This record gives sequence, structure tokens and C-alpha cells, in this order.
Amino acid sequence: MTHAQNRERLGDMDASEFRVAAHRVADLVADYLEELERHPVRPSLRPGAVRAALPETAPAAPESLDEILRDYASLIEPNITHWQHPGFLAYFSSVASGPGILGEWLAAGLNANVMFWQNAPAPTELEERVVGWLRDLVGLPEVFDGMFTDTASVSTLTALVAARQALPGLDARRRGLAGRPEVGALRLYCSEEAHSSVEKAAIVVGIGRDGVSKIGVDTEFRMRPELLEAAIERDRRDGALPCAVVATLGTTSSTSVDPVDAVADCCERHGLWLHVDAAYAGTAAISPRFREPLRGWERADSLVINPHKWLFTPLDASLLLFRQPEIFREAFSLVADYMRTPETPEVHNFNEYGIQLGRRFRALKVWMILRYFGGAGIGRRVEQHCDWAREWADWVDAHDAWERLAPVPFATLCFRYAPPTLRARGDAVVDRVNQAILDAVNDTGEVYLSGTRLAGRFALRVSIGNPRTEWRHLERCFELLEEAAARAETG
Amino acid sequence: MTHAQNRERLGDMDASEFRVAAHRVADLVADYLEELERHPVRPSLRPGAVRAALPETAPAAPESLDEILRDYASLIEPNITHWQHPGFLAYFSSVASGPGILGEWLAAGLNANVMFWQNAPAPTELEERVVGWLRDLVGLPEVFDGMFTDTASVSTLTALVAARQALPGLDARRRGLAGRPEVGALRLYCSEEAHSSVEKAAIVVGIGRDGVSKIGVDTEFRMRPELLEAAIERDRRDGALPCAVVATLGTTSSTSVDPVDAVADCCERHGLWLHVDAAYAGTAAISPRFREPLRGWERADSLVINPHKWLFTPLDASLLLFRQPEIFREAFSLVADYMRTPETPEVHNFNEYGIQLGRRFRALKVWMILRYFGGAGIGRRVEQHCDWAREWADWVDAHDAWERLAPVPFATLCFRYAPPTLRARGDAVVDRVNQAILDAVNDTGEVYLSGTRLAGRFALRVSIGNPRTEWRHLERCFELLEEAAARAETG
Repeated sequence: MTHAQNRERLGDMDASEFRVAAHRVADLVADYLEELERHPVRPSLRPGAVRAALPETAPAAPESLDEILRDYASLIEPNITHWQHPGFLAYFSSVASGPGILGEWLAAGLNANVMFWQNAPAPTELEERVVGWLRDLVGLPEVFDGMFTDTASVSTLTALVAARQALPGLDARRRGLAGRPEVGALRLYCSEEAHSSVEKAAIVVGIGRDGVSKIGVDTEFRMRPELLEAAIERDRRDGALPCAVVATLGTTSSTSVDPVDAVADCCERHGLWLHVDAAYAGTAAISPRFREPLRGWERADSLVINPHKWLFTPLDASLLLFRQPEIFREAFSLVADYMRTPETPEVHNFNEYGIQLGRRFRALKVWMILRYFGGAGIGRRVEQHCDWAREWADWVDAHDAWERLAPVPFATLCFRYAPPTLRARGDAVVDRVNQAILDAVNDTGEVYLSGTRLAGRFALRVSIGNPRTEWRHLERCFELLEEAAARAETG
Repeated sequence: MTHAQNRERLGDMDASEFRVAAHRVADLVADYLEELERHPVRPSLRPGAVRAALPETAPAAPESLDEILRDYASLIEPNITHWQHPGFLAYFSSVASGPGILGEWLAAGLNANVMFWQNAPAPTELEERVVGWLRDLVGLPEVFDGMFTDTASVSTLTALVAARQALPGLDARRRGLAGRPEVGALRLYCSEEAHSSVEKAAIVVGIGRDGVSKIGVDTEFRMRPELLEAAIERDRRDGALPCAVVATLGTTSSTSVDPVDAVADCCERHGLWLHVDAAYAGTAAISPRFREPLRGWERADSLVINPHKWLFTPLDASLLLFRQPEIFREAFSLVADYMRTPETPEVHNFNEYGIQLGRRFRALKVWMILRYFGGAGIGRRVEQHCDWAREWADWVDAHDAWERLAPVPFATLCFRYAPPTLRARGDAVVDRVNQAILDAVNDTGEVYLSGTRLAGRFALRVSIGNPRTEWRHLERCFELLEEAAARAETG
């Protein structure tokens, strides 16, 4: 059936046209992945240039897939920042591995909506299994139940709504927070280094930014539990209502690890909900080598680990684990008449535990990744990334011109160019030189790093987590940094 | 490179293995779509059966893609409820069309994270364009800016956080809601027929279920504006703090349309935020035939339309439009040091307008769908679905044994089997017979309907919105209903 006939039929794309197109797209993606290094990691673009090249209004008449794919190839693919590129060392790597991509493809074909069991029996039960697989792989006890959400932002928000629901006598689900003179101001605790999503969740649930108590950190950027204890006591004295503590395992700037065991002690003493943000470092626990620093996280009430970070899973997939599913259900469950199905207590109706009713079939890609690489294979990849970061840290430590700005517990390194002569000119100058180094290195297009601030100082930041990255990419990155440093200091 | 070597290398799936696998998956999905009707729409399964067939722990060693795809084919694909099936007439259809699937595949290959412009220049700018295309296609004025979120649940939640932020003097972002004796109880207004996501959002933002004022509806299930007016006045007198009104265009049970112009008048009088939930019916406005009943929606402060419902878009994609982007940014923007990029006021950093930091590249699939079908082509498909629903409604109206339970403004029909003899036995009996009809029809596996309750009565509910559905599927559905009705009454 030709395209014109298909149009007339008012149906979907014809089956035979779809098959041909699917093979074409399969090659487009395979080509892209094979030739990733032909692209600069970050394209050089003027803001608005792509938009200006796109028509201002949608076409009224159908266009052929040829035209659409031609524009994709010329306008979209070359003008993205290439998260898949082995030289992408910025932020936290977020990589769609081969088996993960294929899992997304199958899920897109099925388009199952995992709201409740009856509408998605196998997807629901696969999710139950894969959640258990991941929990076991990272060494957490069976008491944890859980589900996938889209992002850590939503996982943490969901956990905070449950924490609020667990406050005795508050019943925020029914009564809300405002207009209740008997209720004190809510308080949430996290370290100064916690992710912005914690503060965003606090805004959403009605705690507000002022209600977020950002606890000071030690010289290694870890929450100081004695300051947490003091803050809770002070708030209680002042009539505020402490609600939850968020401990971060692998903060976003330096991947520091809050002393979660001591934090859990404090939560226990005060009867507070403990949420653990292990969005980054949780995956590392698949290797037994990295479990020790996380010890105590098994005491969490809720916990987030992001497969779409270091578990090579395409966007999006965040794992939310919880100890008391009944609190999540109590907080969120609303079953309207149009969604009522026969009771199936043996299985989850996942929409009742969280914010979203519609839910993508995320378990499929994670299942394919875990089987294709194997648990031990994932662990060895994580270990290799950490070994490389360790090697890089040793190199930085061995060279006077470079300065490490934080410990390297995993595969992320914060450092700066700071030879004694430069350092003598003060931090503001060192910051400026390092910003120039970052820009110069990123402008090469061969690698892409990010920057952050640690204890007031600008830091270059490298994070290794792409299974396509090889040692040669890191060596090249050293070279580019040294070249840029030499130029920046003389420039 | 063999699988064993690949394992040794600790990298991703080898490029040549990926290419072969990609073509295999392309055929798997093409086969699935071609042979959809071989599956019963809803599988016959015991809860827990799929889970029991899956190992309890993840494999330590890698498995071959052959094994994984074999299990996919035997265990997953046959055991889902087939949302793609032309006989799926339940809930609202949510269909991944051919161009939409291909868009997801390309997006999974790129894995761009559309947090901010620098990390996703083309995806950001394509999203800007596609948002504008959709706004124009449904006839909304240019004053609306917007973005994609994952679901209507999140779009509405995001809008309510903005509405709360817009309340003069409250500053919930900074100060939260609790422990403020000067602040009255927050109130949110929607009709009794509004979607459960409105109430869920009210729980999350600290309004609470008691704070949701469910306004009564008329005999056609539309919000009664005079009751809304009275409720707001009463709440103001009682010292409560009205926050926002949600008008629904296309409610989930009956697709009724709230009188949005009158609701907007009321919001204007009281200075209240108007959020319009057009998740279902918004798409209909692509056809000028269906714009009239939505008149007044252009006065909304925020508005949601779900491409993953009637716009043939794979899960997930919800369009959130807003009139004052600065309020969303004021409510949500948090830019941490590790995310700071040079200022680019010409383009959006979309994470600053909503809950999630990580964002999938959703614009790509919507762009491909709009181009492949064309705006007029989408409109003609929507019209065809509505015409078929109209025809069905006429058939129901012409037959004494069947009773229509609501108007049919779009492509969703609520009705029941209620011949005079049965009706004489009372609504409880009629309900039971219709539940039996529903079960019997669904058990055939040929079609899949859902049920709901309208004005206390159980209704069979058919929603047409799959471009793969043809008239013959609906005819077959009539037959099955009549057979089941004959059996249910005698049984």
C-alpha cells in the first residue's frame, strides 16, 4: 500500500511500510552508535538556530517518512549534546546501552500502560520481579518493596509525601497543611550538598525552602550528624514539626557519602522518616567492593537508585524502594469508578503507590540489561570505572600543578589546575583560569566535562560511567587538560 | 566480535551485534503490529503466574540476546493487555502509531536528557517548536507557552504548584504552608466528574482531600457554575483561601465538557487560577468541528492535553500549556552550581519550569507524528472516530433494549442494556446484568470495554481512538454485546 493510499485509509502507517521504516531506523541508530566519535560531544550552536530552521506551523498535509528522516539526520542528530559519546564525562553519565535501547523499542511497540494489574499483567509482574532483582543485587534486605518512577525528582517527591503521611496525627492526605493553627512548620533535613530535587520536592509538598534545614558538611562534604541532631532539637524546641531526613549517598558535586548509619541513629531517636538518595551511588553496590561505605542504608524508610544513571538504562527509570508500602498506598491510593477492577491482592496496582496514573513499561529494558550483562558483569563495569577514576586521582595527587578537591569514593573526580604560582594569586584567579580550561577543553568537542563549586572553589569535574568509554578517552582528556592549562596560564 | 569477547571487553554490546539485534527487534515489533488480532485483547491469566515463571534472582553471568528475546516472546508479549489492539475500546485509547514508535526508537538511540539547553540544544528547540505547533493546531492563542511532561497527573500537579505560587502574599515556595496561623485552609474546585489526578495533586501540594470542593454537575455531567460560585463565596466567608478551579473538557467517565466560559467568568470575578484538564478532548480541537464546545478554554491560566491519548503518541507525553511562564519558573527554578551554564535567554531551560530535572526527548515522536499524518490528517481521524461513536449512539437510541447514559460529544459512549422488563426490576439488577455483559464480552478476547458509574448507575463504556480500529471491529462489538445481553438476561 502506498503512502497516498494509507492516507486515504485514515488508519495508522501501513504494516508493510512500518516494517521497511523500522529497518531503516534500526540502521540509523546502529550507524549513530557506531560513528559516535565523529560528532563533537557538544555541538557548537547559536541558541535558537535549530528552531529558526524549523517551520513555524505544523504541515496540514502528510509528509513522507523520507522527508522526516532526512530532517532528523541533518537537523536533529548532529545538533544534540551526545550523552552516548564515550568522551561525555560531564554531570553523571546517563547512557542507553544496546540491550537497554532494544528494551525501549519493544516497550514502544507494546505501549503497555502499567497503571494496574488487569491492564498490564506481565508488565506489572515483571516490574515486581525486576525490583526484587535490583534490591538483591545491591545487597538490600527483602523487607524492601518498590517500583519504578521516571526520575529521582519524582521518587524523592513521592517518598516525602509518604513521610508526611506517616507523621502521627497530621493526616495531610485528608486535611492538607494550611489553616491548621495546631500544626507547626514542617522541617526537612538534608546536607548542604544534597541534590536540588530535595528542595524542589519540599517546595511541592508545602514544606517550602525555609523549611529545608541544610546541615553543614565536614571537609569531605559529608553531613555532620551532630549538627543534624542539634538542628532537630532546636526545631522541636521552637515548635516546628520535623518530618524527614534525606541522606545522600553520592552527592552530585563530589559524590560524598553521608554517614548514613549515624543519620539513621538520629532518625530513630527522633522517630523521623529516613529517605536515602542513592540515585548515583546505589548502583555501585552491585559490586561488593562498594557496599561498605553505604552501610546503614538498609535502615532507610525509602531509598532511590537511578538505573538511568550508572545502570546503562535509557531515560527514564528511577527505582524507588520502601519499607512500608502501606504508607505509600495510604498516601496516594484513589481508585475511581472508571478504573475499578476485581481485587487482586497477590499483585500490585502500581498507580496506587505514587503520583502518576499512567506508567511506562520500564521494567522491560532493565530486565534485558541485567540479563545481557549479568549481575557480575555490571559489577565489573562499575569497578572498572572506579579503578580508572582512582588512577586519575593518583595522577592528580602526584602532580604539583593539579589539586584534588574531594575524595573519590566512586568514579567521579573533582580537581583543579592550581600550581603554586597560580595559587599565590588567590582563589578568584584560580577559578577564572579553571573556567577557561573547562571551556577550552569542551570546545575541542573531543570530551565534555562539567564544573561545580566545592567549599567556595571552582572545580573541574569528571565522571566516568559510560561502558563505551575506554582508557584512551581518559588519556586524551588528560592531554587536553594539560594543553588547555598551559594556554590558560600564559593567556 | 562474539558475545564472549564482548563480555571480556567490559564495554557495551558490540556495534555489529547491536545492528543485527536491532533488525531482529524491528521484525519482532513489525510482526507484533501485523498480527495484533491473533491475541485476545486481555489475556486470561491468574495473578502471579508470570512472576512465578521468572527467576527470583538476577543472573550473575551474561545471557545471550537469543535467550532474552525467546523469553520476551513466550512470557511477556502474549501476557499483556494489548493497548495497541484495534478491539481495545476501554478507558481512553492510548496508541503508539507507526511514526510515534519510530520517534521513540530514535530518541532511545540518542538518549538526550532535555534538562537545559546546553545539554540538549536541538531537543530543546524542537520541543519549543512542537509545543507551538500543537497550540496552533488546536486553535489556542500564541500567548500560551508550554512544555511536555510525562503524564496529565504531573501536568496538573505542576499547574497547581504554580497556582499556589500565584496566590498573593502566600509565597509557598519559600515559606511552605504549615505553621502559618495567618493562612486559611486552601481550596481547590473541580466537578464531581473530574479525574482522580486532580485530587491526587491536591494531596501532594498540601491542599488535602477535604480542601477539594467537588462541585455538583447537571444531568449531562457538566459542572454547574452557579454551585461553583456559591462554594467559592461560602469558603471566602469561612476564612478559607480559594486557590484554583479545574475545569474538565472531556471527563473520564462520560467525556462531558464543563462550561468553561462560565467557569472562567467565575475565576475572573474571584481572581482564581483556572486550570483546564483537556487531556482527552483537547486533541479533538485539531478538527475545527470540535472547537465550539471548548470555547472559553483560551482563558485558562494553564491547560493540559495528552498526545499519548488521542494523538497516537507512545507513552508518555503530556502537553502542559501556560499563560505566564514566569510563575512556573518562580515556583520551580533551582539552579545548582553543578548545573550552571551560560545564560541563554533566547531558549528554555525546561527543568526550571517543572518538577523533573531529567526529561526525555518527547518532542521527537510528536514531531514525527504531526508531520507523517499532517494536521488535517489527524483532524480527519478524530472526526472519523467521533462519527463512528455518533453512529453507535444513534443505534443505541433506536433500540429499546439499550439505553444511552450520557451525551456523546466526542468518541466515547456510555450506555447500558436496559429493556423495559429488566428496568422494572430495579437499578441494582440492571447493574448486575450489565457487569455480566461486560465480563462476557471482555472474556471473548475480541474486544475490550470498560465500565464506569454515572449518576449511580453502572455503564458500559466504549471509547474509540485507535487509528487501527475499523468499522468492522465496532460491528463485531455490537454483535458480542447483543449475544452477551441475551445470555445475561436469561442466565
